[in-house]
Amino acid sequence: MTGPRTLAERRQDVERRLAADVDVWVATASPEGMPHLVPLSYDQDGGALLLATPVDSPTGRNLAASGTVRLALGRTRDVCMIEGRVEALGIDDLPAGRADRFAARTGFDPRASTVRYGWFLVTPRRVQAWREENELSGRELMRDGRWLDR
Amino acid sequence: MTGPRTLAERRQDVERRLAADVDVWVATASPEGMPHLVPLSYDQDGGALLLATPVDSPTGRNLAASGTVRLALGRTRDVCMIEGRVEALGIDDLPAGRADRFAARTGFDPRASTVRYGWFLVTPRRVQAWREENELSGRELMRDGRWLDR
Repeated sequence: MTGPRTLAERRQDVERRLAADVDVWVATASPEGMPHLVPLSYDQDGGALLLATPVDSPTGRNLAASGTVRLALGRTRDVCMIEGRVEALGIDDLPAGRADRFAARTGFDPRASTVRYGWFLVTPRRVQAWREENELSGRELMRDGRWLDR
Repeated sequence: MTGPRTLAERRQDVERRLAADVDVWVATASPEGMPHLVPLSYDQDGGALLLATPVDSPTGRNLAASGTVRLALGRTRDVCMIEGRVEALGIDDLPAGRADRFAARTGFDPRASTVRYGWFLVTPRRVQAWREENELSGRELMRDGRWLDR
């Protein structure tokens, strides 16, 4: 095991991963406190992540109702956790160019589905990154929507 | 992309993965409907999964309060999802042999931590497995705690 990464190294790794990866684990909760978890594809939209899922699925309903989500990227021993606020958008409410980019990047165009999809724009509020036990300290990279600088 | 696996193949893959893997994604919800998600190590205990996490962590509090969890094993394009009921046990409430086996398998002994850990025994009620879009149909392998046979 190598030594713990610095905050700057972790942030760089997170940004690289966000640019390179296509799928993210999406954890949501119902108003009654039932957890849900699925993998979804995403696209980056400035500092936000764009997701698409059926509006009548557990994840779609939870995202719209709670406006909050916890995302995981990476592997269990090299994780990036993102807590974010969710803005729910109708499938026709996104500019065509943005939707085209999502389809090109993920290989899936939710506008073409027979099932009714929605867009969900996730703005990160808190970001954490760690690999093993020795990186649990210092795992917080963003708090209240701001990247920490030390 | 190969054709979709049969139910029997998926179940075999799930059982192999449960035996071989060490970490699982653990999604929980607070009573107020806030989602949480962390990776944890697990051990198998008959048909159940044994987890350990600090009782005062978000995951520990949520598991104890809600008694329900959604777990993911594998990768985003080869997933095994498990919904289960949770039994919360004090750190001294597990037979020593079971705790020893957990420590040997995961490389971590929560009894030795200065932070107060609890054991959480997850009994699967629903199991799903899929790789890509073509396996979404037929992804349910267990329902109401029973393996499906067709």
